[in-house]
Amino acid sequence: MEETLQGLQVGIDNMWLLVAAFLVMFMQPGFALVEAGFTRSKNTANILMKNLMDFSIGSILYWVIGFTIMYGDSIGGFIGTPDLFFMSDGFGDNYSDYADLFFQTVFAATAATIVSGAMAERTEFKAYLIFTIVITVIIYPISGHWTWGGGWLSQLGFHDFAGSSIVHSVGAWVGLAGASIIGPRIGKYGKDGKAKAIPGHNLAMGALGVFILWFGWFGFNPGSQLAAAGTDNAVAIGHIAVTTNLAAAAGAVTAMLVAWVRYKRPSLSISLNGALAGLVAITAGCDAVNPMGALFIGIIAGFILPFAVEFFDKILKVDDPVGAISVHGVGGAFGTLAVGLFSTSEGLLYGHGAKLLGIQAVGVLAFFAWAFGLGLVLFFILKKTNILRVSRRIEEEGLDVYEHGESAYN
Amino acid sequence: MEETLQGLQVGIDNMWLLVAAFLVMFMQPGFALVEAGFTRSKNTANILMKNLMDFSIGSILYWVIGFTIMYGDSIGGFIGTPDLFFMSDGFGDNYSDYADLFFQTVFAATAATIVSGAMAERTEFKAYLIFTIVITVIIYPISGHWTWGGGWLSQLGFHDFAGSSIVHSVGAWVGLAGASIIGPRIGKYGKDGKAKAIPGHNLAMGALGVFILWFGWFGFNPGSQLAAAGTDNAVAIGHIAVTTNLAAAAGAVTAMLVAWVRYKRPSLSISLNGALAGLVAITAGCDAVNPMGALFIGIIAGFILPFAVEFFDKILKVDDPVGAISVHGVGGAFGTLAVGLFSTSEGLLYGHGAKLLGIQAVGVLAFFAWAFGLGLVLFFILKKTNILRVSRRIEEEGLDVYEHGESAYN
Amino acid sequence: MEETLQGLQVGIDNMWLLVAAFLVMFMQPGFALVEAGFTRSKNTANILMKNLMDFSIGSILYWVIGFTIMYGDSIGGFIGTPDLFFMSDGFGDNYSDYADLFFQTVFAATAATIVSGAMAERTEFKAYLIFTIVITVIIYPISGHWTWGGGWLSQLGFHDFAGSSIVHSVGAWVGLAGASIIGPRIGKYGKDGKAKAIPGHNLAMGALGVFILWFGWFGFNPGSQLAAAGTDNAVAIGHIAVTTNLAAAAGAVTAMLVAWVRYKRPSLSISLNGALAGLVAITAGCDAVNPMGALFIGIIAGFILPFAVEFFDKILKVDDPVGAISVHGVGGAFGTLAVGLFSTSEGLLYGHGAKLLGIQAVGVLAFFAWAFGLGLVLFFILKKTNILRVSRRIEEEGLDVYEHGESAYN
Repeated sequence: MEETLQGLQVGIDNMWLLVAAFLVMFMQPGFALVEAGFTRSKNTANILMKNLMDFSIGSILYWVIGFTIMYGDSIGGFIGTPDLFFMSDGFGDNYSDYADLFFQTVFAATAATIVSGAMAERTEFKAYLIFTIVITVIIYPISGHWTWGGGWLSQLGFHDFAGSSIVHSVGAWVGLAGASIIGPRIGKYGKDGKAKAIPGHNLAMGALGVFILWFGWFGFNPGSQLAAAGTDNAVAIGHIAVTTNLAAAAGAVTAMLVAWVRYKRPSLSISLNGALAGLVAITAGCDAVNPMGALFIGIIAGFILPFAVEFFDKILKVDDPVGAISVHGVGGAFGTLAVGLFSTSEGLLYGHGAKLLGIQAVGVLAFFAWAFGLGLVLFFILKKTNILRVSRRIEEEGLDVYEHGESAYN
Repeated sequence: MEETLQGLQVGIDNMWLLVAAFLVMFMQPGFALVEAGFTRSKNTANILMKNLMDFSIGSILYWVIGFTIMYGDSIGGFIGTPDLFFMSDGFGDNYSDYADLFFQTVFAATAATIVSGAMAERTEFKAYLIFTIVITVIIYPISGHWTWGGGWLSQLGFHDFAGSSIVHSVGAWVGLAGASIIGPRIGKYGKDGKAKAIPGHNLAMGALGVFILWFGWFGFNPGSQLAAAGTDNAVAIGHIAVTTNLAAAAGAVTAMLVAWVRYKRPSLSISLNGALAGLVAITAGCDAVNPMGALFIGIIAGFILPFAVEFFDKILKVDDPVGAISVHGVGGAFGTLAVGLFSTSEGLLYGHGAKLLGIQAVGVLAFFAWAFGLGLVLFFILKKTNILRVSRRIEEEGLDVYEHGESAYN
Repeated sequence: MEETLQGLQVGIDNMWLLVAAFLVMFMQPGFALVEAGFTRSKNTANILMKNLMDFSIGSILYWVIGFTIMYGDSIGGFIGTPDLFFMSDGFGDNYSDYADLFFQTVFAATAATIVSGAMAERTEFKAYLIFTIVITVIIYPISGHWTWGGGWLSQLGFHDFAGSSIVHSVGAWVGLAGASIIGPRIGKYGKDGKAKAIPGHNLAMGALGVFILWFGWFGFNPGSQLAAAGTDNAVAIGHIAVTTNLAAAAGAVTAMLVAWVRYKRPSLSISLNGALAGLVAITAGCDAVNPMGALFIGIIAGFILPFAVEFFDKILKVDDPVGAISVHGVGGAFGTLAVGLFSTSEGLLYGHGAKLLGIQAVGVLAFFAWAFGLGLVLFFILKKTNILRVSRRIEEEGLDVYEHGESAYN
């Protein structure tokens, strides 16, 4: 039963991929807790149900067809060749096909779950199921094909290591489309048009969610190296763990300081979202920037966050109950651009010119156009067919009892 | 300090076993949260205490004697030769003895903790401690010896990869005996004999528990491969991660659909239990079925779940506050049988005849007879000695204050 | 892309170190939940904010300077040579420099977070930020240098494998200084001087926190082997997982029994702290004692715990809302001494004389003098500058609204 060198290498890389995938899967309750904690208790069961279902339906459909749309043989760099019910006992590269499928599945589910937060507390459950299907089967896999699937953006040289744009922005831009079309929650804007804060019901839940996400991110980013054997991979994943952690920490501290200055108080909820913004922003370049660059990316992401939240809330009047658009959309877009600035091998600030920055900008725009555009179409249809938003009464009394027949708390 | 090929192989396999064991250990708070969330707040401290103690006492006693009863030299295929206070710095196979002990310990604790849920909200704490000891020292290790210990069932060709029957059904059948003998909670059945729903106090807690269990299951199932080095193991554990995840997802979606049709609402609590039923059911055959088989196993398990809950609740009038008997007992028995149907190498549906199905049925019956039978004896004695159930007053006012001197919430 | 033996060994050891570091990072929400659950709801946002910030600020500053103070070239065995903004793509030993930095960072953050509990519910947030900086930059790295950094204590032969003293006691003794100087919470001691219990607001949160810590400890202790490749390391980390788990279990059971006898009730909160005391105590000798020794260490730690709590609470009248000083300080000091008793290769009880016990006692005293002494100086300055304690009104109405502008629960 002695193994060969190659067998051991496969064992190491495959184990790494799976452990990382488990951590990313665990981000699901992280998202669920953040969203539930930052919203009102009358909608908690609904929110948990949405999160359970986007992971469940996403897991099934990404296997049924999403995976091959994303990674199948490319049709013109735009879409992979679909192949239903992916089955293989084969062995792709340095890990098993199924380990790869599972790793990609938990990433797809992350994109789907982000949308949920931006549209919380007024979306009909049926509508949520429908757009979860569309995201998992069409929106995410196709834009994923452009990059990780080897499509046109990757051929341009676009760099998004673990998915600041591919996963996070895509989810957020779909959410932006949804939140715009569905409109704000009842009571969010007064007769004078002023935004009112609707505080979440349980910040402890939200904080636990953020810590779980931070933990899971060590699967998300270091796991995206897709290998752990050999000195080069070992150095890379250690590096990524450090840059990921520093950006998160800097995001939290900076957002706290901004809140302290701007609102006179070091706010927990803003600091938590600052940590998430740092995590989202470092995701694209965690492999390419050094710790100092990671620190600055986190600082900038944490600085932008409160202003982005205000911008959507007060200027655009888009009601995003948990700040998902600012965290994942703005944070993800900034992080993608930041690779063009801070990459030690290709970045503007390290003397390599603006070429990568330009390519990154193309990618950011492409993802925005794709996800926001298809999101608009999708939600417009759902609105016109009258299944997008719950009735006034259900919204006021809470979605839990009306939509799911049970309260979260008794 | 350069290692040999064999040393590296050992390092990989041993690390895999330990990481998997850590994940399985983490299922403990998962069980605790599910049980606490699905019951009333006046009993929360009691439930958490039971879960803390079954893991603590189980960890000690399984080391003291359970491990060798399960894995010691077989006495007639029925029981291992006990050896007190297992100590070894030796090295069994491709992992260390102690890593093996720890991995087996967390499985034993899982069996013990399942019982807790079925008897929640009216069992005396002392009685719970007593039957935790009996399960960890006698019931679980002996039936575990029949299979994983190399005993008579394994010699028949019984296939229960990670413990649908060995761990989950055993716990549930003991719980069925307990719930039957202790009787329902006060107020569960009206004067007309009709079952009344007693809603849990915190579905958010329950949902977090289910997500934690789902996460921990990636230690439970893929970890049971007991090795990760080499291409064959790498392919196997990737395969198991995918089948495990698909069955859970299918269980959740199917249970939701059944609830939607039958009770007019997509219920969160039923969907959560559907995910668990899918996980329990796939556990026996996660290595032997393909993704399509896993999907069907999850669908059937999720479909059966609500009917099983109703059957115990309304027909048998066994009061199981968290649905543990349906999830772990029925789900586990079905999953064990399903290997005989869906195994691609031995299953009926793949043209291999009914032989394995027959063996699986023998196993299911043997585990039921053993666990339910010993459970009846055990709880009958506890009932007769009057230490099984708390007094009416304690049950009505809550076990927390009377049994533990503190409330969970202040 | 075939790897060499050495490349694979590096891959294994580096992966182990990182996975362990991820688990230790996840202890952060464990600490946060324990502290928040064991205190009142009006201070929950403050407590979560402190925990978020000690990890964030600690992560940044330990990278900026703490790491090199701890591990830089030794200046007289007392302090490492500081080097700002540690950067390396190099490769130290059998793992990458950055993996090492990250592993050490999460340990440093653990020391910082322990202080928080002992001073909960009356400390000004600004003061907390200041002493987090001092602990991360000065107190922890310097005493860490004495041992893991190769300084004078390690040269004496002091044995603290994973940090009973280095991490846990250091945090607790700083907390003792702080809790002494800041004084008790309003209402903690009556006019007659008698201590009153101020129950925590959510034991479910506390229990989840303890389970998370228990889980994370499998990174803390087995991870401190710093290697997993080869039979020797495989045997060592399996051994450490078993001793760690047994001590925790024994601590929980023993503390429960003491509470049952002494207070007539098996208290959940005391049992939870008993598990933590067992974990803290085994941390120093988890590699050096056998399972039987671990059992006794856990029993003794669990036995001492309730008396230690009473001692600080009733005799010294130091108000430690979560029992952090007893768990981490007393538990850590006892565990450090216990290595001198129970080490199978050097311990008194195994016939190796009292030499190691003496050295351990020197270490315990040195850590106490250092951490408590510097803590006194630090908190004395903070008190005199009037930024240590919140005003009476803020304390009575809760720190959440006044200090952070938001409530945890709405």
